[in-house]
Amino acid sequence: MWTSRLSRVSRPLIRSIATNSCRNKAIAKLPGIELALGGKLSEVQVTYEQWGDQTLPDERTIMIFPSFSHSSHVASNLDDPRPGWWENVVGPGKAIDTSVFRVICASVLGSPYGSTSPLTINPDTGKHYRASFPQITPADMATVHRNLLDHLGINKVHAIVGGSMGGMQAVQFASLFPDRLTRLVALSCTAQTTPGTVAFRRVQRLAILSDPEYKDGNYEFGVGLAGMKVARELGMTCYRSREEFDTRFDWQPSGPTHFKELTFDVESYMDYQASKFARIFDPNCYLLLSKAMDLTDLGRGYQNLAEGVGRIKAETLVIGVKQDLLVPLTEQKTIVDILESYDTPATLSVIDSKYGHDAMFHPQMQSIVFAPLVSEFLERNLDTLEHEQQRYSSL
Amino acid sequence: MWTSRLSRVSRPLIRSIATNSCRNKAIAKLPGIELALGGKLSEVQVTYEQWGDQTLPDERTIMIFPSFSHSSHVASNLDDPRPGWWENVVGPGKAIDTSVFRVICASVLGSPYGSTSPLTINPDTGKHYRASFPQITPADMATVHRNLLDHLGINKVHAIVGGSMGGMQAVQFASLFPDRLTRLVALSCTAQTTPGTVAFRRVQRLAILSDPEYKDGNYEFGVGLAGMKVARELGMTCYRSREEFDTRFDWQPSGPTHFKELTFDVESYMDYQASKFARIFDPNCYLLLSKAMDLTDLGRGYQNLAEGVGRIKAETLVIGVKQDLLVPLTEQKTIVDILESYDTPATLSVIDSKYGHDAMFHPQMQSIVFAPLVSEFLERNLDTLEHEQQRYSSL
Repeated sequence: MWTSRLSRVSRPLIRSIATNSCRNKAIAKLPGIELALGGKLSEVQVTYEQWGDQTLPDERTIMIFPSFSHSSHVASNLDDPRPGWWENVVGPGKAIDTSVFRVICASVLGSPYGSTSPLTINPDTGKHYRASFPQITPADMATVHRNLLDHLGINKVHAIVGGSMGGMQAVQFASLFPDRLTRLVALSCTAQTTPGTVAFRRVQRLAILSDPEYKDGNYEFGVGLAGMKVARELGMTCYRSREEFDTRFDWQPSGPTHFKELTFDVESYMDYQASKFARIFDPNCYLLLSKAMDLTDLGRGYQNLAEGVGRIKAETLVIGVKQDLLVPLTEQKTIVDILESYDTPATLSVIDSKYGHDAMFHPQMQSIVFAPLVSEFLERNLDTLEHEQQRYSSL
Repeated sequence: MWTSRLSRVSRPLIRSIATNSCRNKAIAKLPGIELALGGKLSEVQVTYEQWGDQTLPDERTIMIFPSFSHSSHVASNLDDPRPGWWENVVGPGKAIDTSVFRVICASVLGSPYGSTSPLTINPDTGKHYRASFPQITPADMATVHRNLLDHLGINKVHAIVGGSMGGMQAVQFASLFPDRLTRLVALSCTAQTTPGTVAFRRVQRLAILSDPEYKDGNYEFGVGLAGMKVARELGMTCYRSREEFDTRFDWQPSGPTHFKELTFDVESYMDYQASKFARIFDPNCYLLLSKAMDLTDLGRGYQNLAEGVGRIKAETLVIGVKQDLLVPLTEQKTIVDILESYDTPATLSVIDSKYGHDAMFHPQMQSIVFAPLVSEFLERNLDTLEHEQQRYSSL
């Protein structure tokens, strides 16, 4: 299937990764930024990764924005052979085909994965920012992604792709910098967070903030906070769906039945998964990004949401999941409805999956459901574009 | 409307509350019980309340079982004139008509409202039970309700009514003691808790258990634990619905935007409500009852769930809410499906309400939606029954 699709792409632009002598992973020092809600960051750096041929032109470049808990490591590469969080989507011959496209992904501003964040030394004080890090929004994350494109000398990418918090950054990027992309793929995301979603995230933050070991942000690094575990378990209740839990786990007790004990399989599962996460994810970063998502609002600075979303010029594919408990389908539909009212080409693809909000990251769903949709959209009319491009370059 | 209904009831049995010299609130010392999951309670007491004429016969007696956070105070009475949790449902001329019925409600075993619970002195040690209280289930609660009926000399009541945890006790009572009731009204409940629901409750328990101030159950009484507040806020995210939150609260920030602050109205609302609850509800009782609900399983001790539910002989009305996130409608439908397979008369009424799991307790929904359904079911063919009864007593 992939072979036949690849054969449609003109040969001269296909180069194997092996011929690419550039590094796959790098750090960029970028200009400081003024923040959307006030304040500024005088220095910004990002850790980013690349796949495919780094000499490909802008119109063969795709930028992927990570979600809340994901780093820049979308897929394995020579610098880091570990499988990435979209291993089944990004790679040679895969949906985001690194034989066809140059792919870039930067760790998000504020995340604990090597970009400027609460874990960074504040240049003004010489100490870690910790909880003093100014509150950012997806608009600030988008600005940093734009600055990375500038740094790399890339003007207008073929596409921006992101899911969940990555999708919030993607729609925000496309609204703030409409001339910097041709196509937009936004999965399971929103253009404005609603109170029903704030409620879920707010309790997660409370669990961390009210843990005495949080110490107003000055906790001991690397010690998993109990409050982080509570927060993550709470997250787990809305990332997937009741249908998944009810079909996956035994309904009968498998352990002791007292309230102090783990009684059901689903309890042991959540306990194990959240303990692991709590040890590796920084609490201040968790709080910062959690609030940033709540503050997603493409209408900020404009008359209303429609005006902000209406600024998007890219041809847009929005994908939503019926069973999404965290960012319901109605919010993806709103994006497409607004774009249609502005005569911007936009499509909503609705997925039916018991994996809910998490579906796009589930290994099976990645390759079987999301990959074909994304690939079809990214490569549609690529021959024509290719042809146009070759025609221009031969003039 | 109520007047015409009342006129159908034969006069001799109607007595005004004012002529009733009995107390409305009392404490009963009941026999100890063997617990469903092992262990025993050697002494049990319950605090219970009554409304209507206490000399009415069994077939004019209705017992109501409280939910998780409710005491025996269903409605105002002479001993306690404060409004009760079903003030719009229970009273003279109301849906559960105390001019027609004798109504009894006992605080649940394990609850902090005056029945035996972790707050009770353990007779074996002379100290409060606290976290050493043995784990109970709705089956144990039902046994205590049965023992209260014995204590009051009541053999077979006209109806048992309960919602949420009250509904779990109600179906469990009807299964364990099928000859002690004629009709059953179970609202927004389950006959077997599913992993999707355990997941929600499990995180609430974790929030309390991991609060260092919980001190393995030996916390200072009356001090609201931070973990209790987290637990309650989490509960609030699944008691109602996204629809309610999204229509009720402002979508724009109304406070400071840093992650340490309350930014949105929905955050302030949850903060206020949960702080209030955390100060008044005992944490060990919360944990005990939370786990008890997870352990709801009418199939326990039988071949399967159907055999346990199939033991119910009462004519049954089950009411469920489409938007219930905590105990989904499918679980109410399962009860009715099983009863129908046993040819037991059972009806499922489906409510559409943005108040979700909480709908039955919402003041407006109480009187407009639930009251008419419950009243119609409780009083159906009451004239005929009355007539039969009078015929028998005149023989």
